[in-house]
Amino acid sequence: MTDISVAFQGEHGAYSELAAIEYFHRKVNTIPCHSFDDVFAQVSGGFSSFGIVPIENSLAGSIHRNYDLLLRHNLQILGEYHLRVSHCLLGLPGVRLEEIQFVHSHPQALAQCEASLNRLGLQPVVDIDTAGSARWLRDNPDKHSAALASHHAARVYGLQILLENMEDDQANYTRFIILGQKSSRRIEKKTAAYKTSIVFSLTNQPGILFKALSVFALRDIDLTKIESRPMPGHVWEYMFYIDFAGHASDPICQRAVDHLKELATSLRILGSYPRHQIDYQAV
Amino acid sequence: MTDISVAFQGEHGAYSELAAIEYFHRKVNTIPCHSFDDVFAQVSGGFSSFGIVPIENSLAGSIHRNYDLLLRHNLQILGEYHLRVSHCLLGLPGVRLEEIQFVHSHPQALAQCEASLNRLGLQPVVDIDTAGSARWLRDNPDKHSAALASHHAARVYGLQILLENMEDDQANYTRFIILGQKSSRRIEKKTAAYKTSIVFSLTNQPGILFKALSVFALRDIDLTKIESRPMPGHVWEYMFYIDFAGHASDPICQRAVDHLKELATSLRILGSYPRHQIDYQAV
Repeated sequence: MTDISVAFQGEHGAYSELAAIEYFHRKVNTIPCHSFDDVFAQVSGGFSSFGIVPIENSLAGSIHRNYDLLLRHNLQILGEYHLRVSHCLLGLPGVRLEEIQFVHSHPQALAQCEASLNRLGLQPVVDIDTAGSARWLRDNPDKHSAALASHHAARVYGLQILLENMEDDQANYTRFIILGQKSSRRIEKKTAAYKTSIVFSLTNQPGILFKALSVFALRDIDLTKIESRPMPGHVWEYMFYIDFAGHASDPICQRAVDHLKELATSLRILGSYPRHQIDYQAV
Repeated sequence: MTDISVAFQGEHGAYSELAAIEYFHRKVNTIPCHSFDDVFAQVSGGFSSFGIVPIENSLAGSIHRNYDLLLRHNLQILGEYHLRVSHCLLGLPGVRLEEIQFVHSHPQALAQCEASLNRLGLQPVVDIDTAGSARWLRDNPDKHSAALASHHAARVYGLQILLENMEDDQANYTRFIILGQKSSRRIEKKTAAYKTSIVFSLTNQPGILFKALSVFALRDIDLTKIESRPMPGHVWEYMFYIDFAGHASDPICQRAVDHLKELATSLRILGSYPRHQIDYQAV
């Protein structure tokens, strides 16, 4: 085993842990944390080498808490990973699908599988998270109950996969970011394409966002994401989070960021990291 | 009493009901609904004249569910209202502050008053909503318990206001929108300034958002809000929600929208309505 550790929110078997394992190819110790705040604190305090948190889901949108925590902590984004979120129906070993009556899981997972559950005539039971429902089933063996969680949770808690791909909309991806200290060794991946994440604030004047975006458009730099968040203590003023294609050390990107600094009241580069490109099967 | 009805999410005493009463100057029947979905369904089905839902909070950000519901229903935004969210500590009539040990409320309200509660040495107890915690206290009289809710909830449930302005950050405003059917009679207010809300989608190509914003910038039309949401069924493609200053029937705004239609793959005008301008006291 390695001494590299990755903090994640949830308990063993969580989708965040699965993303960490796939991103680092199993060569890490995964550290469960109670909250996203704890993940950031764990990495900031030097207790874990890295952290992994979800930042955006293709169905539900951005996870705003993590945008706010990025601003509050002085960490760097070292990488990104797109995880295909596929919910499995998990039962105790040996049970048959026909025996299942109740399905335990997190409300969002239950909602994402609503049509499947209705079709099978299964009754949803709300639990605190997906992995937690799998652990619950292991600890409270009941042949009429199933959990809705990942295939990874099935492995962790010794459960049987009764059905796969339970989600009604297969275009279900979560984008995770990998966090580290500014001094962290970079995680090198063979890739030509980089992405950079920045956060900046603008004064409230007509056309200011248009001007801000012009620093990228005039240099043909592709934006992959724009997100606005309320600015703490300023009613209806916003911080903007932008991801753009390219590395912050590329001269052209450097000039765009310098140009943006002329317009922005504050600006911070959150990190440049290899872009994770995958072929989406279900669009 | 009037036969005009306004659907809101929550139970009597909720902040949404308070916003409805302030917006309509009490001249309406307020109809409590279980969920935001029910508010939209109530108005779409013609069971209520109007609906009111929160769309954005100055601390917590946008309420995404309501952006998604705007897209799903063919309703019109007829107005907006900015409510100052001020949490009061409510006790049974006759109790003294010194007797209080426990404070019941919604997790977000408790979080917004964390420093105040710590200072007073009060223990938070999580409840399903603010108004619900006030009703609970009326129905389960306990002189050691208080609820954290609006002054309106105090009136509704006959409770005593022990302390006002419990929130740690006073820059706490929620923007509500007033919904009606396309055929609804407009709610006229004496105001010079209008605002228009639109939603549109763009193909994923470099600089496209910059081009989209140019239709406003080149005509000196001020944007007051921009929000992106994942497009259902399209991984990492977005719908954009924009609010701009002006009425959709103004020739200049009309030309901007026509120009945007040349770039957008879809576009819908959600409504033009009088702008609610208030002086923010605490910034």
